[in-house]
Amino acid sequence: MLREVKELLAAYLGPSGTFCEEAARKYFGERATLKPCTELREIWDAVENGEADFGVVPVENTTEGSVVPSLDLLFERNLKVCGEVELRIRHSLIAKPDARLAEIRLVVSHPQAIAQCKRFLDEQLPLATKKAAESTAKAVQMLAEIEHAAAIGSDSAAEIYGMKVLVKDIEDNPRNFTRFFVIGGGDNPPSESDRTSIVFSVAHLPGTLVGVLEELSKRRLNLTKIESRPTKRTPWEYIFYVDFEGHRSEETCQEALESMRKKTFFLKVLGSYPKAQP
Amino acid sequence: MLREVKELLAAYLGPSGTFCEEAARKYFGERATLKPCTELREIWDAVENGEADFGVVPVENTTEGSVVPSLDLLFERNLKVCGEVELRIRHSLIAKPDARLAEIRLVVSHPQAIAQCKRFLDEQLPLATKKAAESTAKAVQMLAEIEHAAAIGSDSAAEIYGMKVLVKDIEDNPRNFTRFFVIGGGDNPPSESDRTSIVFSVAHLPGTLVGVLEELSKRRLNLTKIESRPTKRTPWEYIFYVDFEGHRSEETCQEALESMRKKTFFLKVLGSYPKAQP
Repeated sequence: MLREVKELLAAYLGPSGTFCEEAARKYFGERATLKPCTELREIWDAVENGEADFGVVPVENTTEGSVVPSLDLLFERNLKVCGEVELRIRHSLIAKPDARLAEIRLVVSHPQAIAQCKRFLDEQLPLATKKAAESTAKAVQMLAEIEHAAAIGSDSAAEIYGMKVLVKDIEDNPRNFTRFFVIGGGDNPPSESDRTSIVFSVAHLPGTLVGVLEELSKRRLNLTKIESRPTKRTPWEYIFYVDFEGHRSEETCQEALESMRKKTFFLKVLGSYPKAQP
Repeated sequence: MLREVKELLAAYLGPSGTFCEEAARKYFGERATLKPCTELREIWDAVENGEADFGVVPVENTTEGSVVPSLDLLFERNLKVCGEVELRIRHSLIAKPDARLAEIRLVVSHPQAIAQCKRFLDEQLPLATKKAAESTAKAVQMLAEIEHAAAIGSDSAAEIYGMKVLVKDIEDNPRNFTRFFVIGGGDNPPSESDRTSIVFSVAHLPGTLVGVLEELSKRRLNLTKIESRPTKRTPWEYIFYVDFEGHRSEETCQEALESMRKKTFFLKVLGSYPKAQP
């Protein structure tokens, strides 16, 4: 774990005010200085070049599904997953400090955030025009230059850009969580409750996937996620992302991984890490 | 199949000029009148109310992953999947008829389309500002009102909105395909080459998923997709979406489905349909 280290730098998906920054803050607390990056690839670059010690990247949202570019980079590059964070996504309606709800004519945000607050917008601001922005943080930042506008974003973005929260928790589905990975040069030593993430491919024949998954189930290793993803080479030819409970340095996991390797074209361990605290 | 029917109405995700419209046209040819809807839910409503005979909805993209709202609606509502379409996604740089590449200062599109053309934009238009739009079709539509701007969208959108294609096929990854489902009141009778889509949930214990998948593999039914999705109730509690080759009216499939039902909390057949022609 990171408790002994005093000075850390963690790169995250910016700009300042994103949920990714909130996740990084939740994971590192005051132990790390946070550095915003404009795209995911830059985060991998920063950690690989030694500019940052760790990166924090979104991987999955309960409402939107997997963050495919993050999965692709985990697959292509060689950094390890060394931690995970789960964050409840709370959207607020944000406006200039002197704004009033009745005066809002335009709502700006990332298209996904607008979609996630549809019911609130239909009921409270049925006449407001919707406008797309690159990110929720960017939307809040844009408010300074527009009249009669509100943004959908996080409370921390409102604070950072000197704006006011008009209405809190406007998302339709309160069960909106995002899972983030902490990536670094190596994974973590075993803790009390770990998870391991792997990616592999098998021949496209009946039973090949089951054969691989059996190596987990017969050792009582609980699978917590599975997803087939098309390969970049041939459309609808799949690789599999799988998470299971356990640490790869444990004997049972080592045996399972070894047996799985024999049944796959390739198998890459993305990392073992302590499970996120809910 | 639909060959004998003369007058059909198919609802798709609009506005006119989206890839979803292209998919509907590819599937129905001239046999159907196409009706744009502004959101996915409206497509389900239109088919359920009898306003439309079929709906065409995106379900999965090779670059962006699953279209989660479509999966949710397939799960919640009772329409059946009766067909699938695969469409190569080709992005063009589009501008006003008199525009020239050298004069473009602003590029508008859906954030995903902008991300998918990053290399082209970095090389050819490094100084252009990027601006988000709700859809690629909407971006093309917006061009009429902006100076020195280009949109990323489909050639058909350029035609529909009276704009010009400046550069074709600007996407970074040519292996960019989207899979669409055709939904209707019932599924299709068996053809020569079918696929069946199901969704189910199992107890969160080691081996439960393998137990279900074995019912397919021991009958030589080839799995073509699997994805765990968090339930809406409890974060990170999962349901599984699985596609396999075969038609649910075939004896082997019926046996497999019956055995799988006994091993799951619930199992819903989303439909059996002829596989898309590549």
